[in-house]
Amino acid sequence: MTSPVSRLAIIGIGLIGSSIARAAKDHSACETICLYDGSADVRARAGEIGLGEIADTVTACVKDADLIILCTPVGVMGEIAEAMAPALKSGAIVSDVGSVKSAVQEAVAPHIPEGVHFIAGHPIAGTEKSGPDAGFASLFEGRWCIITPPDEHEDEASVQTLTKFWEALGSTVEVMSVSRHDRVLAITSHLPHLIAFNIVGTAHDLESVTEGEVVKFSAGGFRDFTRIAASDPVMWRDVFLNNKEAVLEMLGRFNEDLSALQRAIRWGDGEQLRSFFDRSRGIRKSIIDAGQDTADDDFGRGKPSSK
Amino acid sequence: MTSPVSRLAIIGIGLIGSSIARAAKDHSACETICLYDGSADVRARAGEIGLGEIADTVTACVKDADLIILCTPVGVMGEIAEAMAPALKSGAIVSDVGSVKSAVQEAVAPHIPEGVHFIAGHPIAGTEKSGPDAGFASLFEGRWCIITPPDEHEDEASVQTLTKFWEALGSTVEVMSVSRHDRVLAITSHLPHLIAFNIVGTAHDLESVTEGEVVKFSAGGFRDFTRIAASDPVMWRDVFLNNKEAVLEMLGRFNEDLSALQRAIRWGDGEQLRSFFDRSRGIRKSIIDAGQDTADDDFGRGKPSSK
Repeated sequence: MTSPVSRLAIIGIGLIGSSIARAAKDHSACETICLYDGSADVRARAGEIGLGEIADTVTACVKDADLIILCTPVGVMGEIAEAMAPALKSGAIVSDVGSVKSAVQEAVAPHIPEGVHFIAGHPIAGTEKSGPDAGFASLFEGRWCIITPPDEHEDEASVQTLTKFWEALGSTVEVMSVSRHDRVLAITSHLPHLIAFNIVGTAHDLESVTEGEVVKFSAGGFRDFTRIAASDPVMWRDVFLNNKEAVLEMLGRFNEDLSALQRAIRWGDGEQLRSFFDRSRGIRKSIIDAGQDTADDDFGRGKPSSK
Repeated sequence: MTSPVSRLAIIGIGLIGSSIARAAKDHSACETICLYDGSADVRARAGEIGLGEIADTVTACVKDADLIILCTPVGVMGEIAEAMAPALKSGAIVSDVGSVKSAVQEAVAPHIPEGVHFIAGHPIAGTEKSGPDAGFASLFEGRWCIITPPDEHEDEASVQTLTKFWEALGSTVEVMSVSRHDRVLAITSHLPHLIAFNIVGTAHDLESVTEGEVVKFSAGGFRDFTRIAASDPVMWRDVFLNNKEAVLEMLGRFNEDLSALQRAIRWGDGEQLRSFFDRSRGIRKSIIDAGQDTADDDFGRGKPSSK
């Protein structure tokens, strides 16, 4: 089988970037790999691990590449796109793995030269760990990858190539619009992370319960939030700054519902509490039925149910 | 080794009650076990599984028992205590497994006859599943069990017996006051559950994102909340109704912090977001260092770090 891509360039060598390099090599999804990271230490480490060729500049990295994947925090993708633009080869595909898509489209697309195709993407995969050593080749196996071609997009061949690349890594590809992506992810990922960061911060600041007590008895439920809240702070800062509208809308709904629960607790309205809690079991059952959870599953490691 | 308890009575045969019966038998923590549940169907099922002798009334169940453990929702413990009081044998110990302790102390203690010792307890163990078939013998192994003797308590021998019983089931016992317990659990367990129930409800009610989309892309973080939110609705209704003051206090703090994050998102204050998110990693590290989490750990299955 020929590789879907000849030369792959990865910009940003963290959990996702290093996992793509490992997976692409394992699955022969490309013939050669070149990587670049803004940090000299990370570049050196990536070389030691043997993730691929390491370039000293972003332009050297993308030169001759057929597929370039931006794996940096969303906030710096615009300036990287601008820097690499002159070195991009005609016919190349530029993609990314950012958790927000409208903002990436706006930041990156204007810098993409004619003859180069920008097709944004988002693998729904990750762990709470960061850095080049945190990656592993099986991260994308059995996972969804969302591809969001621009609305006016006409280069179906590029979408096909990117789809084949992610499928080679073991993922199932879903195509949707950038705005749809940002609304869906606001509720399935961004709001849960915000809530998790928040409750961990609340616990940290309490005077009446010590951090030692919180840690000791965290198995009562709190612990599950700390896992999510250990995710990369810079990445998540950029997510919230760049999907503001959808996150604030979901947060508004969340706050309304929480006020109703708060009122029910204050006034001892057991009927309302119970009927609210009863509904939660249905959605849980749907997630299990869809194969999106297993008992020993790590955070963010679900499996799509079908292709 | 002699069993810490001769005859054990379990009232309420759900996840916890049936797990105690299984664990007590496996670890010879008692010589005989008698169980009772308000539901005839549950009693019949418990008999089929072979959890122990099944009594048809609460008084028949507690007669001759040395240790009686109430494993029902907190809201009905008072009336059960009243019903069983006349049948309790002198010198017996009455305990419970409720997630709140002040309210249980107030509801149960007035019904306990002279010569019988009431020592409340709370094993920090559980899963999101319910019912007699959901229990398993190893549920309490390597887990904390909090025992909350009344402040004026003087029967140290009863505390010792109850401690030995839980240690026989594999738990590590921590003694604290009822009020301390309720504050610590409000942040480590009750608020996380309330937040999880709430976000699942919010997602359920959205018009702009379908439930199918939420389920499909739940691996982005949302899924972890649905596991907690699948816990027993009646049990949790009673927890919130009976630990109102501490839960509302923690919820007030949570809301203040969330308003600050909401404002930072609205005004694009990346510095504030990042510094808030940075702090969350420390508490996560403490939990891992304390052995309260492992990668393949099921919800609520942490291990105490010592003993």
